[in-house]
Amino acid sequence: MHFFSDNATPLSPQIMAAIAGADRADHGYDGDGWSARLDGAFSDLFDTPVSALWVSTGTAANCIALATLCPPYGGVVCHEEAHIAVDECGAPGFFTHGATLMPLPGDGAKLTPGAVTDRLKTIRPDVHQVPARAISITNATEYGLTYSPDEVAALGDVAKANGLGFHMDGARFANAVAHLGCAPADVTWRAGLDALSFGCVKNGGMVGEALLFFGEAAPARAAEAKRWRKRSGHLFSKGRYLAAQILAMIEDDLWLANARAANGAAQTLAEGASGRLMHPVQANELFIRLTADEAARLRAQGFDFYDWGEGAARLVTNWSQDAHSVAPLADALRALDRE
Amino acid sequence: MHFFSDNATPLSPQIMAAIAGADRADHGYDGDGWSARLDGAFSDLFDTPVSALWVSTGTAANCIALATLCPPYGGVVCHEEAHIAVDECGAPGFFTHGATLMPLPGDGAKLTPGAVTDRLKTIRPDVHQVPARAISITNATEYGLTYSPDEVAALGDVAKANGLGFHMDGARFANAVAHLGCAPADVTWRAGLDALSFGCVKNGGMVGEALLFFGEAAPARAAEAKRWRKRSGHLFSKGRYLAAQILAMIEDDLWLANARAANGAAQTLAEGASGRLMHPVQANELFIRLTADEAARLRAQGFDFYDWGEGAARLVTNWSQDAHSVAPLADALRALDRE
Amino acid sequence: MHFFSDNATPLSPQIMAAIAGADRADHGYDGDGWSARLDGAFSDLFDTPVSALWVSTGTAANCIALATLCPPYGGVVCHEEAHIAVDECGAPGFFTHGATLMPLPGDGAKLTPGAVTDRLKTIRPDVHQVPARAISITNATEYGLTYSPDEVAALGDVAKANGLGFHMDGARFANAVAHLGCAPADVTWRAGLDALSFGCVKNGGMVGEALLFFGEAAPARAAEAKRWRKRSGHLFSKGRYLAAQILAMIEDDLWLANARAANGAAQTLAEGASGRLMHPVQANELFIRLTADEAARLRAQGFDFYDWGEGAARLVTNWSQDAHSVAPLADALRALDRE
Amino acid sequence: MHFFSDNATPLSPQIMAAIAGADRADHGYDGDGWSARLDGAFSDLFDTPVSALWVSTGTAANCIALATLCPPYGGVVCHEEAHIAVDECGAPGFFTHGATLMPLPGDGAKLTPGAVTDRLKTIRPDVHQVPARAISITNATEYGLTYSPDEVAALGDVAKANGLGFHMDGARFANAVAHLGCAPADVTWRAGLDALSFGCVKNGGMVGEALLFFGEAAPARAAEAKRWRKRSGHLFSKGRYLAAQILAMIEDDLWLANARAANGAAQTLAEGASGRLMHPVQANELFIRLTADEAARLRAQGFDFYDWGEGAARLVTNWSQDAHSVAPLADALRALDRE
Repeated sequence: MHFFSDNATPLSPQIMAAIAGADRADHGYDGDGWSARLDGAFSDLFDTPVSALWVSTGTAANCIALATLCPPYGGVVCHEEAHIAVDECGAPGFFTHGATLMPLPGDGAKLTPGAVTDRLKTIRPDVHQVPARAISITNATEYGLTYSPDEVAALGDVAKANGLGFHMDGARFANAVAHLGCAPADVTWRAGLDALSFGCVKNGGMVGEALLFFGEAAPARAAEAKRWRKRSGHLFSKGRYLAAQILAMIEDDLWLANARAANGAAQTLAEGASGRLMHPVQANELFIRLTADEAARLRAQGFDFYDWGEGAARLVTNWSQDAHSVAPLADALRALDRE
Repeated sequence: MHFFSDNATPLSPQIMAAIAGADRADHGYDGDGWSARLDGAFSDLFDTPVSALWVSTGTAANCIALATLCPPYGGVVCHEEAHIAVDECGAPGFFTHGATLMPLPGDGAKLTPGAVTDRLKTIRPDVHQVPARAISITNATEYGLTYSPDEVAALGDVAKANGLGFHMDGARFANAVAHLGCAPADVTWRAGLDALSFGCVKNGGMVGEALLFFGEAAPARAAEAKRWRKRSGHLFSKGRYLAAQILAMIEDDLWLANARAANGAAQTLAEGASGRLMHPVQANELFIRLTADEAARLRAQGFDFYDWGEGAARLVTNWSQDAHSVAPLADALRALDRE
Repeated sequence: MHFFSDNATPLSPQIMAAIAGADRADHGYDGDGWSARLDGAFSDLFDTPVSALWVSTGTAANCIALATLCPPYGGVVCHEEAHIAVDECGAPGFFTHGATLMPLPGDGAKLTPGAVTDRLKTIRPDVHQVPARAISITNATEYGLTYSPDEVAALGDVAKANGLGFHMDGARFANAVAHLGCAPADVTWRAGLDALSFGCVKNGGMVGEALLFFGEAAPARAAEAKRWRKRSGHLFSKGRYLAAQILAMIEDDLWLANARAANGAAQTLAEGASGRLMHPVQANELFIRLTADEAARLRAQGFDFYDWGEGAARLVTNWSQDAHSVAPLADALRALDRE
Repeated sequence: MHFFSDNATPLSPQIMAAIAGADRADHGYDGDGWSARLDGAFSDLFDTPVSALWVSTGTAANCIALATLCPPYGGVVCHEEAHIAVDECGAPGFFTHGATLMPLPGDGAKLTPGAVTDRLKTIRPDVHQVPARAISITNATEYGLTYSPDEVAALGDVAKANGLGFHMDGARFANAVAHLGCAPADVTWRAGLDALSFGCVKNGGMVGEALLFFGEAAPARAAEAKRWRKRSGHLFSKGRYLAAQILAMIEDDLWLANARAANGAAQTLAEGASGRLMHPVQANELFIRLTADEAARLRAQGFDFYDWGEGAARLVTNWSQDAHSVAPLADALRALDRE
């Protein structure tokens, strides 16, 4: 059984159906009927006018968003373990033409308003130093923690007070919302967010994430983002297959149903590993203390996962799992404790 | 009936089957079993060791190829109507960090060795001028013409004599090879080519083109290309769905079968429009003289196509068509002449 | 005697005196008293509020200007023989992060409103094509011709009507104004210009050109330009030595006096070469028909100049010359005709 | 009296004489006789073949060096308080097209082999993470400390073992060598260094620093650096004035004489502030504990310097000072202690 990444999973049946449903002639690029429905569908979901576009990957979504929020000579405040800082091979520097990431420490890969404010204070306003122009957070974070609406809003206040754009990497946004139980609006634009990378692939999609812009500047930013999308080779000839997946993901709340399944599976594992947890389990990732010997024993039983440095491991659940299907691993974890 | 682009078509049934066949858990990115087979499959097809990687779009394939062949301070000789020069929103400048396209005129969007050589002679070798570092051609060209193996080899000789990289945009490579009847090797590496964008999407695929490197430098260039792919946001989480499509395309020669169908349909149309042709018809595109009034009459009969400036139109056939299915348009074209 | 470039000349005595005058302690970068006077001095000279900054070279001035006027996905309409297109090793692509030059032909390296308008019409407004965002002209041109105030204004109207920024490479702006006899304002902001590279080095300076912004957007553009200047390594530690040179150049109209001397010398040569002129002589450059044999004979007499392709040569006069000092070359040219 | 920066000082008389000496016609750019002597002069000074070029500023020297050592997708290990990380407005990101700085902590702004090695170990070799490609150190550091030949060699060994380029920001290289008393070769190429920014301006020059390449790859890197220099607008029309300054700086060991004067002045101050030193004083910078009240009292006596956060100040001495001329400040510092 695979617990090494939600990338490994097959497609939600509804996604495969959506692909099949889009399999007829229409205009190319984003001139098709499915792409044309994105703005409306996300505006409904977020209860505000949204400018939405499909992009190919989370990296592209994050970086195109940052390119619209930060000039080449600007900086982006983020967590030092953020995906954009650690796992995108410098893609933000590529898309922004050399903007500077300003990484900060923080528990559970979460930024705090205090830490951001303190960092901003260190920057002289002269031309010798890179001025911060944006804040980027990940929700749920790289350690599976969520920012609540209040926490996002507190960072949104810092962004607003300092004239910074505010972006959220939502590769696991569905898992965050499923945990928080809030309206999508509450944890985004109502909290001051300008741009959201709305993840689909980890949640059962094949290719295609949505990049959303909120607020008055949204149409202008989306227009610019479409230039970046084309210029970076991300404007697919047959975009309808991406748009159709994204629409299927948000219709009938598939995104939340899938995220709830993954989160529920994670909770089941968390109970099995209750003495080993390195972080609270809120979304669909667990980070647990695990010796090399224990890891070997689990793998011998057919469980797959990543080591996370020495003496630790990362377990990721996904939409195709539920409490029942992950029970064997929960049991195996408990068994380790009894030995 | 759609004749405005081969982008509009649905998927080849074999491609849809390949997607379904890849719909099971495997490692993410390009760590899966399908991606691992690309090098071998293309090495067989081209009868030489090939380093192959999937990328999302033709623009990405072209530009990543150019980024490996040309430094930021270098230039790429291409046709002034090449897709990279006209229809990619400056993407080559983005991926190469500002390299300069050096566009040349030429009949049917084809470069000639003489024109290239003359252009190279105008460049002083001092640091004030941009040195040419690569040649890029499109085969079949933007006007549906093909470069024969001898024609490619003549340009390959110019490239070699001047120390230039040599790239081919093969968005319609299948249509070119189907017309030429040559071995894929003859019109590529045997003719001095370093890198090929091997198109799949216009030929019945959904997303995913192959980028191929030939020759001694191929492994190093492919390794670098993989960095660019990640850095530009083109490394999909679930790359197996792209790799599976590409493999399906070249297995059992689906790529050639599809291209032959499209080319055959184009020939049928060419017979119907024999007095109107602006270029010889070799691949799956026709450029014809057509008055606004004639265009309106065709559209009234349900035929869709692009105007091509004043008094002209572009018709594109595709894999899903054959002589039979396009006969109505051929007849309608003949009817125009009789009126 | 040197006629190959105005780069070769020594410094105007006033410039050397200005350097010596700045040789005392003051704040670094542009925090000194000389730099602080630039805005005021140029505002006086141009009879309008000007935002001015020193930069190191004409290439830097041109490219920083373009970076403030054109986004990476935009295009700059210019002449195909413009210095930015031909002699800056792709520097505009570097500073603009890959914006596209859109070169046009035209007599004497001059753009015409008609040619620009025709070019703009070919650009589809979709995301596949690069949108023009700026026009750049050189005055005096690379062939020593000037744009009159009316000619600049006609291009300014095209820029305004199409929402384009408008830049002038004024490496030889002084020579142009000296020829035209107009107010500096007439051929710049009154004609719709947004940014001017005001050349000093070819006109007797050592290092340092001025980059000027006009109009409402000037302060914001200058602020951004100062970021680019630092970021591109052009913010000198001891900027006072540059600022002092520039101030000396415009005080007491040294710039015009020097340009008039150079232009006058060129007229003297033009009389000597009246049957050989390939372009009218308006500034300080002559392009003349000259066989290889004739060139050799002139060089044997100690005259230095560049060949300009086959059967032609370029002669450049400079501030340190006058009619008297160039008379020997004028005579030698006449002598060629008599032989 | 100015102690806020060595940027504030006037020119060494020898430098002014060199400028005057270069004030005659010669070829433009770097085609003149002075520029042609740089390779030889630095090869003599460093006792090995050196490829040398003048550039305008230290930022340009550092960033052009890094552009030749690190690809856009690579990383540069440096100190978190390095000038390139803190005070160049992201210039390394501009010149390298988005390469990633990898800042490390360390006492006195010094990197240690252990810290570098530990950092390198955290980087996975996959395409998701930025690979380190270069190490950059500053000697003397931003806190006025020096790396000894052994310390540089230890870092050079790390660089070599990991296939990294090795660069030194030598804005105050003269001060470092004057303190160390070693041969220039010992602390550079003999210790594994590939590229050195050899500072002149802080040491009595006007404009122009030297960028030096060592080792087998030096000619190729210098050739590429000359492309970057032109492309970034740093190839001055009248480069002879820069080359002449640099030659004057190294002839007759002016660079060392000036640095010894500045270092000596710093030692005198260090004695006066012996109870306040935050770092050992080795070059020409002092960082001292100083209350706001004490700072005000010193300023009231006419001493100028920068605050360095709360309760601290930075004092910089320069070539124009000696023990005698700074004695008043040393006395004033002692007086503070007695009060």
